[in-house]
Amino acid sequence: MVEVDHPVSIVEIRAAHERIRPHIHHTPVLTSEGLNEANGASLFFKCENFQKIGAFKARGATSAVFALDDVTAQQGVATHSSGNHGAAVARAAKLRGIPANIVMPSNSAKVKIRAVEGYGAHILFCEPTEEARESTCAEMIRKTGATLIHSFENEHVIAGQGTAAVELLEDVRNLDVVMCPVGGGGLLSGTAIAAKSMRPQIKVIAVEPANADDAAQSFHAGRRIVTEKKFTIADGLRTNVGEPNFRIIQCYVDDIVTVSEEAIVAAMRTIWETMKIIIEPSAAVPCAAILERAIELNGKRAGIILTGGNVDLDALPWSP
Amino acid sequence: MVEVDHPVSIVEIRAAHERIRPHIHHTPVLTSEGLNEANGASLFFKCENFQKIGAFKARGATSAVFALDDVTAQQGVATHSSGNHGAAVARAAKLRGIPANIVMPSNSAKVKIRAVEGYGAHILFCEPTEEARESTCAEMIRKTGATLIHSFENEHVIAGQGTAAVELLEDVRNLDVVMCPVGGGGLLSGTAIAAKSMRPQIKVIAVEPANADDAAQSFHAGRRIVTEKKFTIADGLRTNVGEPNFRIIQCYVDDIVTVSEEAIVAAMRTIWETMKIIIEPSAAVPCAAILERAIELNGKRAGIILTGGNVDLDALPWSP
Repeated sequence: MVEVDHPVSIVEIRAAHERIRPHIHHTPVLTSEGLNEANGASLFFKCENFQKIGAFKARGATSAVFALDDVTAQQGVATHSSGNHGAAVARAAKLRGIPANIVMPSNSAKVKIRAVEGYGAHILFCEPTEEARESTCAEMIRKTGATLIHSFENEHVIAGQGTAAVELLEDVRNLDVVMCPVGGGGLLSGTAIAAKSMRPQIKVIAVEPANADDAAQSFHAGRRIVTEKKFTIADGLRTNVGEPNFRIIQCYVDDIVTVSEEAIVAAMRTIWETMKIIIEPSAAVPCAAILERAIELNGKRAGIILTGGNVDLDALPWSP
Repeated sequence: MVEVDHPVSIVEIRAAHERIRPHIHHTPVLTSEGLNEANGASLFFKCENFQKIGAFKARGATSAVFALDDVTAQQGVATHSSGNHGAAVARAAKLRGIPANIVMPSNSAKVKIRAVEGYGAHILFCEPTEEARESTCAEMIRKTGATLIHSFENEHVIAGQGTAAVELLEDVRNLDVVMCPVGGGGLLSGTAIAAKSMRPQIKVIAVEPANADDAAQSFHAGRRIVTEKKFTIADGLRTNVGEPNFRIIQCYVDDIVTVSEEAIVAAMRTIWETMKIIIEPSAAVPCAAILERAIELNGKRAGIILTGGNVDLDALPWSP
């Protein structure tokens, strides 16, 4: 049990699950005999690419928005996001019937902007820097009285993200390993708490792009290290890991490994071609670790959270 | 009950299902609330893109190869195919441990050639014309004594293709409509027999590219019309409908409608973006009819067979 503002344990994750159940998909788990044979393991893919808004982020945002008391909720919610979390908060606010204010960097993908607009949120554009995002969001909150729904440093978000692992471990018995990518660490911290609580002997392994390896560095150094961001195609994972998230990761995660950009693109394409499902580059990151043998899964039963499927079909990474 | 060489009825389809069950996937049925809302209907997508070899063709080919008696089977099987049927026959022959001889046009996609090779089949290349394919295949059969597994004019193939509709109607109750594309008519004839036998009030609606509309022309004229082939991106549907298939279609199919090339590409992209699954152009053809309102589904429960997901990711139809 680790403190964020409040502790997050399996109890909070179960409560989040009850809160969000009417509003999210219980996503399917798919398997591929071809990939199992090629990798000498039994792989179970939890398809959060089929989740509402096309990504697991719907879980955490809905959990946090529906955890607010009525008086607070009426003031609205706010966040800054260039990607799936903004759409997830906008959708959750619409479901609850409260205002959403989303700060987006001016260079956000048009498809992401349209998604947020589609849920009727108020969008405020800012310069594409972390500082501008945070200051613009803080100013908006000061003016509107809205509540910040941070994309990973928020206990209800962490609890919500942990519900994917709850479903995975309930649907697939006797998993030896559970794997997910790590960016800010919202999904990883929730996954780790859920998995270790439900099945203490399970190994929790996170995978990170080598070009954005602050979580791996931090994990191995035993202290949180903030790094300069290099480019990675896994745009959902460019963030540095959050402080409360890192404390949970230190307690519950068994290893964090890294993969190259080439391996991420190759894994994404392999999943598309063999499983006929669309996953985004960030979702391909754990698959890259498996296909590159960056982790040893021989004979094991491994659950992999495929985090999202929002891809610009006009700009695929293997296009000329 | 309609004669091919032997009659095909739900009894033969059930028998085919038992024969192939150990070798094929019972594929999932997916739904999309977004597409349901946009179209005012309840749509149930039978995901044969997740089938073995990435297409429903695994059902018919496996049905036919496993229907052979042992003495005949030992002489091997043969077919001509530029696409999924060749891979399906090669795979079924490998499973049964008998030789497969596949005639492929010299301009077949490399990925299709690799798939057939991967199952250990003997490939014979020919000129890319229907005449060359048939004469090369006939010559190969004369030399080897192999049995022809025609891709649609074969009662065991028809019965095998009908098993997708059996699963769909068993998994989704009270369907008003079942839809599939039509090329040679193997899938459509099997689907129509299965659906009308299991649920006589169901409407069976086929969809065809306007650029290859021989089945629609034939259906409305009441006699089989063979047309010149224009180009269609739905490469699985360029074939003229078979004679035995057309007789079944006349008995059991309620309508055949056509869609434009633009509608096919738009529908394919919509399915990719909203459902996060990969379907090939031929599989998008019924979806195009729905999205273009070429058929009236208002308030109805419609099952759509998504026939396959084998796409060259380097040559997508919306690429510049």
